[in-house]
Amino acid sequence: MIDLEQISMLSHTSASKIVFLVIDGLGGLPQPETGKTELESARKPNLDKLARHSVCGLTIPISSGITAGSTPGHLALFGYDPVKYSVGRGIVEALGIDIQLEHDDIAARGNFCTVDSNEVIIDRRAGRISTEENIELCKMLNKIVIDGVEITVYPVKEHRFVLILRGNGLKSDLKDSDPQQVGLCPKKIEPLSTDAGETAKLVNEFVAQARGKLQKERHANMVLLRGFSQHPNIPGMQDIYKLKPCAIAIYPMYRGLARMLGMRVLDAGNNIAEETEQLLNCYKDYDFFFIHFKNTDSRGEDGDFDAKMQAIEELDAVIPNILKLDPDVFIVAGDHSTPATLAMHSWHPVPFMLNSKWCRPDNVTEFSEPACATGGLGCFPAVDIMPLAMANALKLNKFGA
Amino acid sequence: MIDLEQISMLSHTSASKIVFLVIDGLGGLPQPETGKTELESARKPNLDKLARHSVCGLTIPISSGITAGSTPGHLALFGYDPVKYSVGRGIVEALGIDIQLEHDDIAARGNFCTVDSNEVIIDRRAGRISTEENIELCKMLNKIVIDGVEITVYPVKEHRFVLILRGNGLKSDLKDSDPQQVGLCPKKIEPLSTDAGETAKLVNEFVAQARGKLQKERHANMVLLRGFSQHPNIPGMQDIYKLKPCAIAIYPMYRGLARMLGMRVLDAGNNIAEETEQLLNCYKDYDFFFIHFKNTDSRGEDGDFDAKMQAIEELDAVIPNILKLDPDVFIVAGDHSTPATLAMHSWHPVPFMLNSKWCRPDNVTEFSEPACATGGLGCFPAVDIMPLAMANALKLNKFGA
Repeated sequence: MIDLEQISMLSHTSASKIVFLVIDGLGGLPQPETGKTELESARKPNLDKLARHSVCGLTIPISSGITAGSTPGHLALFGYDPVKYSVGRGIVEALGIDIQLEHDDIAARGNFCTVDSNEVIIDRRAGRISTEENIELCKMLNKIVIDGVEITVYPVKEHRFVLILRGNGLKSDLKDSDPQQVGLCPKKIEPLSTDAGETAKLVNEFVAQARGKLQKERHANMVLLRGFSQHPNIPGMQDIYKLKPCAIAIYPMYRGLARMLGMRVLDAGNNIAEETEQLLNCYKDYDFFFIHFKNTDSRGEDGDFDAKMQAIEELDAVIPNILKLDPDVFIVAGDHSTPATLAMHSWHPVPFMLNSKWCRPDNVTEFSEPACATGGLGCFPAVDIMPLAMANALKLNKFGA
Repeated sequence: MIDLEQISMLSHTSASKIVFLVIDGLGGLPQPETGKTELESARKPNLDKLARHSVCGLTIPISSGITAGSTPGHLALFGYDPVKYSVGRGIVEALGIDIQLEHDDIAARGNFCTVDSNEVIIDRRAGRISTEENIELCKMLNKIVIDGVEITVYPVKEHRFVLILRGNGLKSDLKDSDPQQVGLCPKKIEPLSTDAGETAKLVNEFVAQARGKLQKERHANMVLLRGFSQHPNIPGMQDIYKLKPCAIAIYPMYRGLARMLGMRVLDAGNNIAEETEQLLNCYKDYDFFFIHFKNTDSRGEDGDFDAKMQAIEELDAVIPNILKLDPDVFIVAGDHSTPATLAMHSWHPVPFMLNSKWCRPDNVTEFSEPACATGGLGCFPAVDIMPLAMANALKLNKFGA
């Protein structure tokens, strides 16, 4: 198997440009009444036309039968084996609110919770306090000062927050304090290696001070921490592919992930039309453009078949504007399927097409799940997309003599 | 790559049920006169109808071009990489006669053979003595008593037997005594590690005593031993998939293999109609049902195209009875191909279909090799079947956040 190190030895820069459009949760399932998926049901003349001049296929995000979360799904799209390169829960949460992490920072997912007078957890979510209350509580926790570490608490939604520790020699191999059930006390943070002993002490001191500051609160009188993790050691896309990559994504999680992979994260406006506008504006400055479209996934998770169909139509309308740029390689892919009938991420392979002067078109005449299943690329792993993109951009040297 | 440990972390129990029908030696090759395979030639309205509502594909049992034996073929079907999890020859023979092994037991494949007065082998199969004679000889060998080990000899067919050693600290890394050719003497059993020295002594003692007891026989006056092996350390399907699995199989080898993987082995009657009856009877008690149909393989090995076709038709007739149960996931697969034109196992990919509420049907309208080649799953490794089964049964959690 070719790995990223080998890809990096074969990669070289060139003037050619790759536009990589990710339609989040793209794949679907048939509506029982019509027997057609969201993609088959949508009116999408531009995507269909493009399919006729592209090579098509279905991508497997991680492995057959495995449903991808957003992070592993996107890692695979950018060529990173999501089983090898895993991103810890705390880091995922931090990316999700677009915190700019430094390399040794430790991130943990936090919950405000409720404990009784015996320190026993009676509500792991503190009655799902409002985000406004959360913001006020985080302000209190940000007053905590501990020698040797810089502590920042970022509010997320409702009872959730992210804790970031910054300092020298911090280690993230720590057990959760969250016992994941009521009726138990929050656990002391324990180190999983001797190296992490000092960090465990610092975190326990944070928890003790937090308890002190919160003890008069009615609901949110304690904190639970889990998923301690550090920035994974992932090589950047500039290093691997010798690209100058940028990301045009509205949602924080995808912006954070793109930044972690070395992409320049640009202003994306508020909708796909504004994202496309940004693409036109910055087209001369980069040679790889990740454009992220979220609405298909969101409407799929809502279980709203028609709304997901409309999101596809909304996306279809901007395709001609992208094609005006005549990119050397134009890819339309998805990170995973989100069928409206299931109302969640799923394991089903994801429609894919690649258009370039050098692709070998197949007999596919529309962009849909059954049509792509008969495409020239067959059913293939999503981690193969980037090598295909690079090859079609003529940015990969021959392997061996 | 996702491995079994990761699958086990994602798996959870639920009320949904998986019926997994294995048609042994399912795949075929075209009859030169008609250009159609056994499956294309058979009248099988129920399988064809099911294909129209399923997702189809072709499975690769082990690796492209590799012909699977029955054991690795079935290991792959149940998600066990047959290259990683190998089952020794002696154990395969023991499973083949449904011996209930304990964990440290050593099994070896035995032949009765003929040696001359110089102890030189002149017939490795002792003139293919009758099974009846074999049974009598095994009774004699079972009178052998050796301190520190319990010895049992089980007759198989004609000149074949299985030797089982039971005792503490036995080691199976032993060389064969069978030189695999005539004109040589049977070899002393040699240990392949220092640990196995004691076991080698015990086996050599067994061989010496066997020679003594057999020396007056006309044909079968000596034994040859090979394939010393112990129960492989294979995690059970309950542990990996959190299933409550059962097996409905008539042939001993498949029953033994199923037991080794943690399945409850049920009475299967004498034909596929009786196997189906058992399925109906036990349906409430399990959540995974392996049903094995052997005739397709047997008739394929006979080189009898028409008989294999008829076996498919016999199988087709019970499909409606299975479908009455409305299983959450119904899989029809094969462990390998056995084309009647070749009259042996072959490397050709095997037709596959999966039916569930959550499968994404494709445009396949019949269950055959060429139709399945255009299916939504494409050509894929057989070890991916179980993750797909688990996903469609909604028994697998999402990978990553």
